[in-house]
Amino acid sequence: MIKSLSLIYINMNHIGSILFLMFISVNCELYGQTVKLENQPNFIIIFADDLGYGDLSTYGHPSIETPNLDRMASEGQKWTNFYVGASVCTPSRAALLTGRLPIRSGMTSNKVRVLFPNSVNGLPADEITLAEQLKEVGYGTACIGKWHLGHKKEYLPTNNGFDYYFGIPYSNDMDNLAKLKSKEEYEKFWHNRSNIKSENFNVPLMRNTNIIERPANQNTITRRYTEEAISYIRKNKDSPFFLYLAHNLPHIPLFASKEFLGTSRRGIYGDVIEEIDYGVGQIISALKEEGLTNNTIVVFTSDNGPWLSFKADGGSAGLLKAGKGMTWEGGMRVPGIFWSPTKIKPGLISDIGTTMDLFTTFSHMAGVSIPNDRIIDGVDLSATLLRSEPSDRDEVLYYRGSDLYAMRVGSFKAHFITEGEYGMYGERQLHEPPLLYNLNHDPSEKYNIAERHPEVLEKIRAAVKKHESGLVIGRDLLIERN
Amino acid sequence: MIKSLSLIYINMNHIGSILFLMFISVNCELYGQTVKLENQPNFIIIFADDLGYGDLSTYGHPSIETPNLDRMASEGQKWTNFYVGASVCTPSRAALLTGRLPIRSGMTSNKVRVLFPNSVNGLPADEITLAEQLKEVGYGTACIGKWHLGHKKEYLPTNNGFDYYFGIPYSNDMDNLAKLKSKEEYEKFWHNRSNIKSENFNVPLMRNTNIIERPANQNTITRRYTEEAISYIRKNKDSPFFLYLAHNLPHIPLFASKEFLGTSRRGIYGDVIEEIDYGVGQIISALKEEGLTNNTIVVFTSDNGPWLSFKADGGSAGLLKAGKGMTWEGGMRVPGIFWSPTKIKPGLISDIGTTMDLFTTFSHMAGVSIPNDRIIDGVDLSATLLRSEPSDRDEVLYYRGSDLYAMRVGSFKAHFITEGEYGMYGERQLHEPPLLYNLNHDPSEKYNIAERHPEVLEKIRAAVKKHESGLVIGRDLLIERN
Repeated sequence: MIKSLSLIYINMNHIGSILFLMFISVNCELYGQTVKLENQPNFIIIFADDLGYGDLSTYGHPSIETPNLDRMASEGQKWTNFYVGASVCTPSRAALLTGRLPIRSGMTSNKVRVLFPNSVNGLPADEITLAEQLKEVGYGTACIGKWHLGHKKEYLPTNNGFDYYFGIPYSNDMDNLAKLKSKEEYEKFWHNRSNIKSENFNVPLMRNTNIIERPANQNTITRRYTEEAISYIRKNKDSPFFLYLAHNLPHIPLFASKEFLGTSRRGIYGDVIEEIDYGVGQIISALKEEGLTNNTIVVFTSDNGPWLSFKADGGSAGLLKAGKGMTWEGGMRVPGIFWSPTKIKPGLISDIGTTMDLFTTFSHMAGVSIPNDRIIDGVDLSATLLRSEPSDRDEVLYYRGSDLYAMRVGSFKAHFITEGEYGMYGERQLHEPPLLYNLNHDPSEKYNIAERHPEVLEKIRAAVKKHESGLVIGRDLLIERN
Repeated sequence: MIKSLSLIYINMNHIGSILFLMFISVNCELYGQTVKLENQPNFIIIFADDLGYGDLSTYGHPSIETPNLDRMASEGQKWTNFYVGASVCTPSRAALLTGRLPIRSGMTSNKVRVLFPNSVNGLPADEITLAEQLKEVGYGTACIGKWHLGHKKEYLPTNNGFDYYFGIPYSNDMDNLAKLKSKEEYEKFWHNRSNIKSENFNVPLMRNTNIIERPANQNTITRRYTEEAISYIRKNKDSPFFLYLAHNLPHIPLFASKEFLGTSRRGIYGDVIEEIDYGVGQIISALKEEGLTNNTIVVFTSDNGPWLSFKADGGSAGLLKAGKGMTWEGGMRVPGIFWSPTKIKPGLISDIGTTMDLFTTFSHMAGVSIPNDRIIDGVDLSATLLRSEPSDRDEVLYYRGSDLYAMRVGSFKAHFITEGEYGMYGERQLHEPPLLYNLNHDPSEKYNIAERHPEVLEKIRAAVKKHESGLVIGRDLLIERN
């Protein structure tokens, strides 16, 4: 313990180590656990928006080339059963940052899918973000990119554990200056390519709590996020840091820098992803230049599946069924790449993981205790990441709003409710008995085997019951709008 | 020229180099070209049966683990627009081995999809196989695995340019001892798992022209093919060789060695593919042990898309539409991995290639001229393989039987006819105007853009006209059965 504290002292001397040591002792007392602080790694989470399971070449896309992510996947771990906490933006981000299902935090609703510019609320102050966790043990923290957990000052990243924020507070298609009032107007607007100009979306670009550009110039935004990320890394390399880089693309409307526009085979959607991939490569290069690769873990994933109703401007879930907004696999299973040359044991991982697990895993790795005054849904994936041991996670809960639509236990997934979205995949339907699929044998959810496996259904029903017995549903915070 | 001939002399002294040199001079005269013979590489084509575009982890499968093929793909070239000459077995194999569309050789039919045990004919003697080509310049040649280009003695591999044959002469589901007479009997048989025993399929296993085992024990057949391949490599390493290893799996019925049975997450279908992948790894290891990696090119591909009507016992085309038997992408686009540490320039290749191109490419690399008395459909992919230059191929013809259903030119594919198969994807339908898809923007063939691009349709129509103007249709050799 002495040794580790002295290490911190050396690492942290520029941020007030005396105060920090005092805090550590409080922290230890609070959670009643020993905090392990040796070799705190840096964490970089690169989070794409609406990028589908099938949208990287390493996940099988035939006309999008992502050599940097492909290399990370082959040098590190490529997870093929990696999930988000919800199939749309706001609740998915809440899940990642709090390690909790959004139904607990109120960041989901049956009436409104996500937060909008006229929403009143944001992530509640009493929720603990991964940034807040890591700050407790001395991490520098930055959020670069899309936030979407409340655009009012009190809800912004800087009030949620991040030292620094540069990005847009909600989706890049919001604040549409065309003020579309009907479904027809909406479809007409999006059908006409000449409307897809950055100027037509009055999205604010913020630094910390100030709007610095409005409308944000989205043509250069991916490049600028990458530049901000690299600048943050270079400035903060002397102490452990957590960088949350949440690109707001490839969510529609699609924009790319002129260096990338028209360069991919896949059209504008591919240009966008290839620019993100290029940026990932630049970040890896910067880590190498700064000598940080040995102590940095980089994760790449996405907030939900592809927005299929935007056709060629939306992505692909590969062989998985459906996409964004839905609880079929294509809505909630996403790429999951973990890279760190000295820490992550290379390999293909078919075990289950979720974005919520990053909260728990990174907390453990950094030596900060998991809050014990609330239910945390994240599990610690360290054993899998560091040593390729089996994942501790065996379950996935597929919520849509505050309703549990499906649950996976091991290989098997039962759908209690299915429902399409954005005019695709049909109406809401209750299933009794539930639909049952073996996701390993049948990843495309084609062959219902409920009749052959009543014992599996019973097992899943029991798991649902157990989950629901401890569930306190948070007040719906998305519904209130001005 | 002196230098190269003396090199051959040294390499070939064990197979009668004097006769060989005499032949070379005849050959040069015949084709009127200089034959380049320096550093003839060994060629290994590993050809899977009914393995779909999405069935390897490097092509996005989430529950099949193929670490050896994944490594080959990241060390070598992974082609994402690689095609077969037909969407079913016999014509696809004819295309690969002759470098010609099967409509030219008579190895396709509108009435019978493939050759059967009661078929009368096989690949005509006047067709030139890649093995025959390579033998002309001194290669040793072996066919290990499934042939399916005629089971009578005169049609077997040993009469088609291969020095050695070990394998089954047609599909592993043929000679079914249950003698199924109706569609109902067929479905009942396959529905009952207890029927899926190697003993129920009276398939002969042959060595050269002799039946050595009948029914072939299919439980161990993948392992035995791998062992035969390695044994062939070790015995023939001192002179250039061409090894055609055509696994008869994962075509149904599915079998795996006991070491693999029940070990994959994907069920028996995954067990089979993981055993093939393991064998690929063993072959690579043997090449390393024998010091052959610097001068051997290994290709892995498949004969057509997945047999979807066999549900979980069939594979996946990933994000591509449909499967075996059909002219949608899922029927004819397959994995294409090229590996050779010193020759193949590593990278992701989104250019177009086909199995027919192997005939032309490998002929050029080995220094044997392309026959000029017939149309050869294969193009030389050397520039792409060796230097990552753009592929010379810009077109794909999608035949079904002797009808041209679709054609791809550049990114665009026009469907003149579409038709489902095995009870899926609907009835035969003629399209005027044709359906038009941009395969790079829309690899799943979802969004018909014919109305927006009449000029592209005209271009494709012109390419069809050009193709058809030189076309001599071979006599249907599949139709005659006893």
